[in-house]
Amino acid sequence: MIRTLAIVGVGLLGGSVAKAARAGALARSIVGVGRDRARLEAALRDGAIDRVTTDLEAGVGGADFVLLAAPVLAIEALLERVWRAAADGATLTDVGSTKAAIVRRAEGLAAGRPLAFVGSHPMAGSEKSGYGVARPDLFQGALVLVTPTDRSEPRALKAVTGFWEALGARVDALEPEAHDAAVAAISHLPHAVADALMDAVARSAPEALGFAARGFKDMTRIAASDPDMWADIFVANREAVGRSLDAFRRALDELARAIAGGSRDELRARLARVKAAREALR
Amino acid sequence: MIRTLAIVGVGLLGGSVAKAARAGALARSIVGVGRDRARLEAALRDGAIDRVTTDLEAGVGGADFVLLAAPVLAIEALLERVWRAAADGATLTDVGSTKAAIVRRAEGLAAGRPLAFVGSHPMAGSEKSGYGVARPDLFQGALVLVTPTDRSEPRALKAVTGFWEALGARVDALEPEAHDAAVAAISHLPHAVADALMDAVARSAPEALGFAARGFKDMTRIAASDPDMWADIFVANREAVGRSLDAFRRALDELARAIAGGSRDELRARLARVKAAREALR
Repeated sequence: MIRTLAIVGVGLLGGSVAKAARAGALARSIVGVGRDRARLEAALRDGAIDRVTTDLEAGVGGADFVLLAAPVLAIEALLERVWRAAADGATLTDVGSTKAAIVRRAEGLAAGRPLAFVGSHPMAGSEKSGYGVARPDLFQGALVLVTPTDRSEPRALKAVTGFWEALGARVDALEPEAHDAAVAAISHLPHAVADALMDAVARSAPEALGFAARGFKDMTRIAASDPDMWADIFVANREAVGRSLDAFRRALDELARAIAGGSRDELRARLARVKAAREALR
Repeated sequence: MIRTLAIVGVGLLGGSVAKAARAGALARSIVGVGRDRARLEAALRDGAIDRVTTDLEAGVGGADFVLLAAPVLAIEALLERVWRAAADGATLTDVGSTKAAIVRRAEGLAAGRPLAFVGSHPMAGSEKSGYGVARPDLFQGALVLVTPTDRSEPRALKAVTGFWEALGARVDALEPEAHDAAVAAISHLPHAVADALMDAVARSAPEALGFAARGFKDMTRIAASDPDMWADIFVANREAVGRSLDAFRRALDELARAIAGGSRDELRARLARVKAAREALR
């Protein structure tokens, strides 16, 4: 059992961890850390957290388990202060959607002061954001990718994995760079595509939007995600996202050529191949 | 009330019309017309249709309301035979996802023999296909676009509109060419994008597919649609689809440049603008 769980950033993910940890009695005490006290009050009123502080060092320093749940660039920027403030023996993790920059920064800091850090990425977001949409069951059955390296302490990996499993998640481990390439393909690329699709239709055919049905709505739902969070993700993972965008543009150009060429047989064969790939996805 | 409703093509849409018409007692008798008698038997056993025939002229000739529910290129190819076979005074419509080619062909035929034809496009498809997934409630609350022209008989428009409304649909009217441009943007473009997304990730990052979550699955769901139907749609509407693809590629190139440039503020402003557009969509 955790004595004091510090959650830095009590939005959708941080707030859901607080609610789930409370519901599962995972921590004796939960402290919420944020820049804006007023935005932490809701979690306090709910009983999801026991204390709030805007003092990062005080909040982190008193905890034996620290969860960094700010946007990715903010996590990276906070890491040095968190490292200095953390208590000896504390376990640290984060919820950033990109991992290489955060994990490699943590490894640099760990060379000076060994601390039990392993990065995490709970794949349980939403196009909505903020504590108001936090849910205690957000991680039930969700996949959490943890990103240990050959320098990670086995004890830290075990503690972080056990934490997410106690919240109901399945945990899988990947190298930080392999993680970033994988999420560029299956998460960041779809976000970019959804954004461009919504943008293109809103600008070039706004009169058509009144006829939009489920297909269009499903495909653009994530274009309503939090701009702050996603600007950070795209910047933090821009190289891997760039490679995924290139692969996508090649596939789209091929399809556009097949459509313009007007060959039914070629199109049908192509569509059948992609249908089979989609149906293999469970 | 319709005396005899002939449905040419008893798949998802044709079969759902049969079931809905039966449930609502819209027609005294329903005849299913198809090339393959075995594939019509299920609808006969269900009681959704009363008779089956592989003889297009016989099936159409005995009906006072004819619904053409084959893939779009097949509808266009059948139109001349249907026109000759149809009974005097019959009302005709179709369910093709593209309308200009079908409606303009019908107008050419109507110059020789006036018949009550108005094109329809029920926006109630699915990535599944075939009579096995037909449902009597498929059109409940769905939007059906009808595409009269200045040459359409008011009586035909009224009959076709009333038919879909009796099946539970909302009906809106558009010129055929405006219809094709609108569905290129909000239906055919998303299909092309879903196909390219699935294809790109399956080919460039297959190892990432195991981590795919709801966002990726929602965005590629329609890539599992019927290849025959969609090859037809892309070919039939290739000019409008080409224009929509161009608009999409411009939007994607802009976003890709903003990501590669790494400016958080520029990205955030862009993402916020698109989020607002998506939220305006209800």
